[in-house]
Amino acid sequence: MKIVRFEIDNAVSYGVLTADNQIHVLSGDVFNNTFTETGKRLSLDNVKLLAPCVPSKAVCIGLNYHDHAREMNLTLPEEPLIFLKPSSALNHPGGAVEYPSISKNLHYEGELAIVIKKEARKVPVETAFEYVLGYTCANDVTARDIQMKDSQWTRGKSFDTFLPLGPCIETELDPHNVAIKLLLNGEVKQSSNTSNLIFNVPKMVAFISQVMTLYPGDVILTGTPSGVGPMQVGDTVTVEIEGIGRLHNSIVSG
Amino acid sequence: MKIVRFEIDNAVSYGVLTADNQIHVLSGDVFNNTFTETGKRLSLDNVKLLAPCVPSKAVCIGLNYHDHAREMNLTLPEEPLIFLKPSSALNHPGGAVEYPSISKNLHYEGELAIVIKKEARKVPVETAFEYVLGYTCANDVTARDIQMKDSQWTRGKSFDTFLPLGPCIETELDPHNVAIKLLLNGEVKQSSNTSNLIFNVPKMVAFISQVMTLYPGDVILTGTPSGVGPMQVGDTVTVEIEGIGRLHNSIVSG
Repeated sequence: MKIVRFEIDNAVSYGVLTADNQIHVLSGDVFNNTFTETGKRLSLDNVKLLAPCVPSKAVCIGLNYHDHAREMNLTLPEEPLIFLKPSSALNHPGGAVEYPSISKNLHYEGELAIVIKKEARKVPVETAFEYVLGYTCANDVTARDIQMKDSQWTRGKSFDTFLPLGPCIETELDPHNVAIKLLLNGEVKQSSNTSNLIFNVPKMVAFISQVMTLYPGDVILTGTPSGVGPMQVGDTVTVEIEGIGRLHNSIVSG
Repeated sequence: MKIVRFEIDNAVSYGVLTADNQIHVLSGDVFNNTFTETGKRLSLDNVKLLAPCVPSKAVCIGLNYHDHAREMNLTLPEEPLIFLKPSSALNHPGGAVEYPSISKNLHYEGELAIVIKKEARKVPVETAFEYVLGYTCANDVTARDIQMKDSQWTRGKSFDTFLPLGPCIETELDPHNVAIKLLLNGEVKQSSNTSNLIFNVPKMVAFISQVMTLYPGDVILTGTPSGVGPMQVGDTVTVEIEGIGRLHNSIVSG
């Protein structure tokens, strides 16, 4: 099932996206299974898609792809390295990413994002999947020069608009065997498969939940494969994950 | 004016704390000046104080005290170094700080916290004070061994309970000339004055708001003076800031 969040007539709703690009409008809470179909149908073309969830935080994983580690000649990490992007950075499908005036090196990082279903605190690996609603595409937009200038990555990764999510939450995905690509102006720049993940989904959920409580709608950005690189004002960037869809964003002057 | 947030009979309210420890209960929104006194009075002893705001994020500043820089023989930073603590780490006056089972070196860091009054995006230094509701005490609790193990500080500073705030928001403080102390079991461990801040309040608000939008209730932790050190299970830690009050917390096994 593909869950979308959208705006029409200044109201925000959730819906289920069908293969023929129809939205079956839902009422209730998609995070606790109390939702029902209202019977109302809309065409995808007639709504403005929003990020499919509104996270209180985005927890991101550093190096987490075998191919990226090989490319960089890096030792495999023993445990995940985590960092945060703030909720204020949230961006939407089709949304403009603002190139900060203080940066000269804005990068894309295509990533699979885990969407949390219910409050997760110190959950074991064995039951971690129960806390996952589904998966969406994410772009961990990064002002690389600022990231490298500061010892902490926060500033370089936390600008407003630097967290595009979407287009939907796919609830029935096998997250460990899907192709992930990033395209810049239609040209493939990153191409891998989530089978290359160093830490898998239950390990990430369990690890992070030992530190901080995850809430419904929170997201975990699972790391980026090899091939990160720069974007320019006017570019269109697309994160494409098999079984989920495509997340398009444009780059504008900030 | 000292604004407190408190719980009584399972309901959460805001109030104004008077010098005789009475609370004048408020209705309305303390962040946009629409609040009024309800006429109801309560004794401070009869309520449970809560963190005086519910931040969507806590933005923290690294090295920001001249005395701490001298002590560590560090060059003064040219601009603030920022990092984030998640909202899930929020803790309350009197609340228990949980010593993580995976840490062996839990540290206190007493800090002055700025409480944001209204949405702040790319505000200039000149008008930055207009976006500040007031100030409270904060403890940037840190699992130092984990902070040092990871290249990013996120994990070591983001455990649940690691962000005690309180006891009140003082709206009439001169933030650049107040004594700040941290006491461990009553013994003074940190003692400085905010006149030693390297980056002052308007500079911090303006700098952060160039990167990310700050929302009402968001907090900026302005850095810690010299004298950070370890805490043990059973300890009581107190952050005391002149003109604001004392924030007490206990350390328990996590």
